[in-house]
Amino acid sequence: MHTVFSDGEVWPTVRVEEAWRNGLDVFSITDHVEQEYHSYQDDIRIDLNRSFELARTRAEALGLTIIRGAEITRDMPPGHFSAIFLQDVKPLQTSKWRDAVKAAYDQGAFIFWNHPGWIGQQPDGIAKWYDEHTELLEKGWLHGIEVVNQKAYYPEAQQWCLEHKLTMLGNSDAHQPIAMLYDSSSDAHRPMTLVFADNNSEESVKQALLARRTAIYWNNMLFGEDTYLKPVFERSIQILDPKITIIGTGLVYVQILNDSDVSLELVANGQVDEILFPIQITLRAGKTVLLPVRGRSVELSGSKEIKIPYRVNNLRITPLEGLPVELKLNVTFKKAKQ
Amino acid sequence: MHTVFSDGEVWPTVRVEEAWRNGLDVFSITDHVEQEYHSYQDDIRIDLNRSFELARTRAEALGLTIIRGAEITRDMPPGHFSAIFLQDVKPLQTSKWRDAVKAAYDQGAFIFWNHPGWIGQQPDGIAKWYDEHTELLEKGWLHGIEVVNQKAYYPEAQQWCLEHKLTMLGNSDAHQPIAMLYDSSSDAHRPMTLVFADNNSEESVKQALLARRTAIYWNNMLFGEDTYLKPVFERSIQILDPKITIIGTGLVYVQILNDSDVSLELVANGQVDEILFPIQITLRAGKTVLLPVRGRSVELSGSKEIKIPYRVNNLRITPLEGLPVELKLNVTFKKAKQ
Amino acid sequence: MHTVFSDGEVWPTVRVEEAWRNGLDVFSITDHVEQEYHSYQDDIRIDLNRSFELARTRAEALGLTIIRGAEITRDMPPGHFSAIFLQDVKPLQTSKWRDAVKAAYDQGAFIFWNHPGWIGQQPDGIAKWYDEHTELLEKGWLHGIEVVNQKAYYPEAQQWCLEHKLTMLGNSDAHQPIAMLYDSSSDAHRPMTLVFADNNSEESVKQALLARRTAIYWNNMLFGEDTYLKPVFERSIQILDPKITIIGTGLVYVQILNDSDVSLELVANGQVDEILFPIQITLRAGKTVLLPVRGRSVELSGSKEIKIPYRVNNLRITPLEGLPVELKLNVTFKKAKQ
Amino acid sequence: MHTVFSDGEVWPTVRVEEAWRNGLDVFSITDHVEQEYHSYQDDIRIDLNRSFELARTRAEALGLTIIRGAEITRDMPPGHFSAIFLQDVKPLQTSKWRDAVKAAYDQGAFIFWNHPGWIGQQPDGIAKWYDEHTELLEKGWLHGIEVVNQKAYYPEAQQWCLEHKLTMLGNSDAHQPIAMLYDSSSDAHRPMTLVFADNNSEESVKQALLARRTAIYWNNMLFGEDTYLKPVFERSIQILDPKITIIGTGLVYVQILNDSDVSLELVANGQVDEILFPIQITLRAGKTVLLPVRGRSVELSGSKEIKIPYRVNNLRITPLEGLPVELKLNVTFKKAKQ
Repeated sequence: MHTVFSDGEVWPTVRVEEAWRNGLDVFSITDHVEQEYHSYQDDIRIDLNRSFELARTRAEALGLTIIRGAEITRDMPPGHFSAIFLQDVKPLQTSKWRDAVKAAYDQGAFIFWNHPGWIGQQPDGIAKWYDEHTELLEKGWLHGIEVVNQKAYYPEAQQWCLEHKLTMLGNSDAHQPIAMLYDSSSDAHRPMTLVFADNNSEESVKQALLARRTAIYWNNMLFGEDTYLKPVFERSIQILDPKITIIGTGLVYVQILNDSDVSLELVANGQVDEILFPIQITLRAGKTVLLPVRGRSVELSGSKEIKIPYRVNNLRITPLEGLPVELKLNVTFKKAKQ
Repeated sequence: MHTVFSDGEVWPTVRVEEAWRNGLDVFSITDHVEQEYHSYQDDIRIDLNRSFELARTRAEALGLTIIRGAEITRDMPPGHFSAIFLQDVKPLQTSKWRDAVKAAYDQGAFIFWNHPGWIGQQPDGIAKWYDEHTELLEKGWLHGIEVVNQKAYYPEAQQWCLEHKLTMLGNSDAHQPIAMLYDSSSDAHRPMTLVFADNNSEESVKQALLARRTAIYWNNMLFGEDTYLKPVFERSIQILDPKITIIGTGLVYVQILNDSDVSLELVANGQVDEILFPIQITLRAGKTVLLPVRGRSVELSGSKEIKIPYRVNNLRITPLEGLPVELKLNVTFKKAKQ
Repeated sequence: MHTVFSDGEVWPTVRVEEAWRNGLDVFSITDHVEQEYHSYQDDIRIDLNRSFELARTRAEALGLTIIRGAEITRDMPPGHFSAIFLQDVKPLQTSKWRDAVKAAYDQGAFIFWNHPGWIGQQPDGIAKWYDEHTELLEKGWLHGIEVVNQKAYYPEAQQWCLEHKLTMLGNSDAHQPIAMLYDSSSDAHRPMTLVFADNNSEESVKQALLARRTAIYWNNMLFGEDTYLKPVFERSIQILDPKITIIGTGLVYVQILNDSDVSLELVANGQVDEILFPIQITLRAGKTVLLPVRGRSVELSGSKEIKIPYRVNNLRITPLEGLPVELKLNVTFKKAKQ
Repeated sequence: MHTVFSDGEVWPTVRVEEAWRNGLDVFSITDHVEQEYHSYQDDIRIDLNRSFELARTRAEALGLTIIRGAEITRDMPPGHFSAIFLQDVKPLQTSKWRDAVKAAYDQGAFIFWNHPGWIGQQPDGIAKWYDEHTELLEKGWLHGIEVVNQKAYYPEAQQWCLEHKLTMLGNSDAHQPIAMLYDSSSDAHRPMTLVFADNNSEESVKQALLARRTAIYWNNMLFGEDTYLKPVFERSIQILDPKITIIGTGLVYVQILNDSDVSLELVANGQVDEILFPIQITLRAGKTVLLPVRGRSVELSGSKEIKIPYRVNNLRITPLEGLPVELKLNVTFKKAKQ
């Protein structure tokens, strides 16, 4: 995110208050290091560490963790990079991009590629991988990529993260006030990187980021590896009455509570022999919905565990695949009376 | 409104974009002239005219009128004052309040008293009129009062405006981004001063303000004189089918469209001999509602214009009185068949 | 609630589906027993037990408890009464009101007075207590009163419940589909009686109703005795960081989570010696808000439990009094450095 | 739509009130003629004309036009059909489908095929055209098809309407209360057939339907021929400041008001030589948005009308094509100062 200390339009404290209101635990301000992005230098004395310092007090008062960061902003290739967990931003203000990235790396920074398919650098909106990115990767200077930036999703970046073992991130890249960028009267919200860390400390978050323990929440979707999305699904969903009795080809409604903030879009991922179930169903956020199931045969009897196979279309483990899940029911089948 | 050039938290351009989004035509930034309110002077070179100048280009690009203004911020009495239509803010930066107000007056400014019952100066939230205000009034140095400021309404101020022929104003006094102050997911919105001017030019607006041609829109209420609120009501409301036929004591629904953005809360203001009508009814903003009317006698016949007397509770012509209005119907009465 | 089996406009199954969607656990259909309210008898064969029977299957499929009920609908006094936990509605269809109420009583019904200030019977909207109500009370034929009916609240009824040890109820009295009566795009919702019962069984609910273990949820308010509202408050609110340090007259923000669906409106209920706190604050439903507290003296030091006294304006223990509560903080006071 | 007189769950008057609330001018209740769909015949005396008669009085009181209709409900092929503008529904209650359709045709009915891809008859959800439909078409017994039914859109049906000169319709097919089917707290709304008729009279509407002067409004989309969608677009959109001046490759914002209830999704449909404009932009319903345009050359000078080519993705003239439109600007180009 940016402030008046580069080309943003808010004082650093606004970023703290926004983070608190939006429910973030950890955040970073990443003002550009390059002078050409210091839009207000006629009025403001630019100090690259200043936005962090001005924000820190309020962040602490609100119990938030703020991480010192900066953006290295160069032509493509290699494009823009954020470096976080810095000790001092100043050494990054250098003309050659390799020097700037190295300066971050030498401070132990976590470095990620920003908006790889940004229309300002890739007019068709499609991210491209250059030799420079291979170089960064091989040097150990690249730890992650923004799969989501502001209001754009880059499927290529999600794929690269899987292939190259890079961390997936989703960030707002806000220059304006957040509430002007994402209208709170609509469903829009800032992208968030979910970091599966032990706690909110800087060390713990850094460890989790380096270990790629993240998922991205944006636009009623989660993007991440199944290792992380599966428990999210399992702790969000509760089948309120998993023991049901089906008589012949009769209809039974199963109540499913989705206790999360994300409506989950399920599509059938195969069939089962004993029962029919909907091809698609949406488990609305914070609501209980009815899943209608029906017996396939008048002849069935006895009890059985049935696993209904679905994919969750908006929990994306790859750009094209939803997370496979099973809804488990304990069904007692009874023959219908003639 | 305030920016980083006093104690606000946004760059001046944010105020322009917010004004455009909120549908304002005319606005003013009124940064404090006093050094003690220049919260960021360690980082920002303070120039009292700068926030106006930085905002002007974007305002013009968006077709908005921006008026140069400033806030004179002193202890109570006499409290805080905004001065708008200034040529140069600098002369107002002087230690004695009379000198500061005079400096504004000498530039032909429109001067108004801010948040007279502000809890920071009046702990019980009740506005008080001091000798200093009489002095300002008699010198011609006081033209209006904020009846609504940010999220507070001052009924005393509305009364004083009526008594002393002062202009009523309602302003946001925003320091944060507007969308952090008024959550767009709720019904809250910034207070707005409706100025009944010929056009959006600075001259025309100034003329209207000096002639007290204003009303205040806030919190689903309008505050103003009946001269201005009556036409607002009359052009908002349309009786879709004013010609009705009532048979005996029968029931007829009259469709009333409220084409404005303000839900209007009507309460009965007397009776009529011929028909019964609801004690209270809300004409929802942008909707058509049904007004049920019923004949009072089985004996009536013939046609007649009926004026149903209501008061509009949320169009306030004084702190305690809603605007009196009449809904006109052309009723044909028919005796019920026995 | 009513169905096409008296003067409602929906088939009984609609009432079940609505109850499920609105999150009710237990409900009753109370069609009028009197023939004059059987509006569709030209088309429908009226059977007073039929709406219950038609609704029961779907209620069971959805895991809801449905209670057989009926409305005895007479002129004022004594007005309208609902009787629930009936075995057979037919005996209530008798011309004299005492006979009808007795028929309900003889079946062990829970009997309550409906909408005592209903404008159709009390044109000024104010409930009146008649000798007939004293008679009913003394005979043990009256167990509760509707304090809230549809869209009206009767403060007199709340007072009578407290005085006469009667159960408070809040009901929709729906004739139309619920979603036509309470627009789900606004904050409006059907009134609900919260019954503090061991479980959802008919017996358990009846026991709780007879023991007056209820509160009413309506219009972002709860009405009930402090015995029941106090635990509601205490389990809704969580002070996230009750241990704070105040330096001199410095400001600290305390984070308070309101995990309930009801925004709680707190107003100060006295002062404390050591700290200043807001006169009023709203704890928004489902949100965390910041409570600003400030030291009153530069001289304080040491640790202390501070209880901040508030009343919750919208948890009403009497028609005029909000529930008194305390917010407990563990404050360490430190002298400010000079 | 259906009522308790076939397998719906509401009394006919509910359909009238819903129609009024939803802003319909004309509507029809189309209860099934077949006895197997008379779900409540144990309780209700079924009369096929009764739902129309019971609804008519309230429709007239509210100024709505109600058209007598019915649904002929048979296996696929040929499936379900609605017939409206009937004089008497009874003759349609006959066992052979050809006899039923002929009975409607003989009364001068407008006859349309319902939900051709309904999953109950086409398990894959894809509509199929059978010989029986060719037969109906050739006999002149088929006038239209539901392109949208309840919550489903049938692209095949839209294509058939274009090929066979049939009228496009979009209907709710409601059995439950409308507000239970389409949650008013979300953006969902009932499908509506926009009929471009001279007035709301039965004759005028029938004439327009037979002349195929319709479009369908559903799910923030319109489906129809360009003849009808083009004027909808043109009267919805207003360029507030079409005269602009572009200096060199400078940026100018053009304000575009969308005064309709439908957010319009524009995607570029070609290029223009002189200016750059966004690949895609959404004109939000009821809002003004800023269209950024930029000069392509520093060398341009002089004035010119520029037509920016877009397609409106959600105004569908075929299943795959949005309506082509042009935004006209009068641009004065000026060379940038060096």
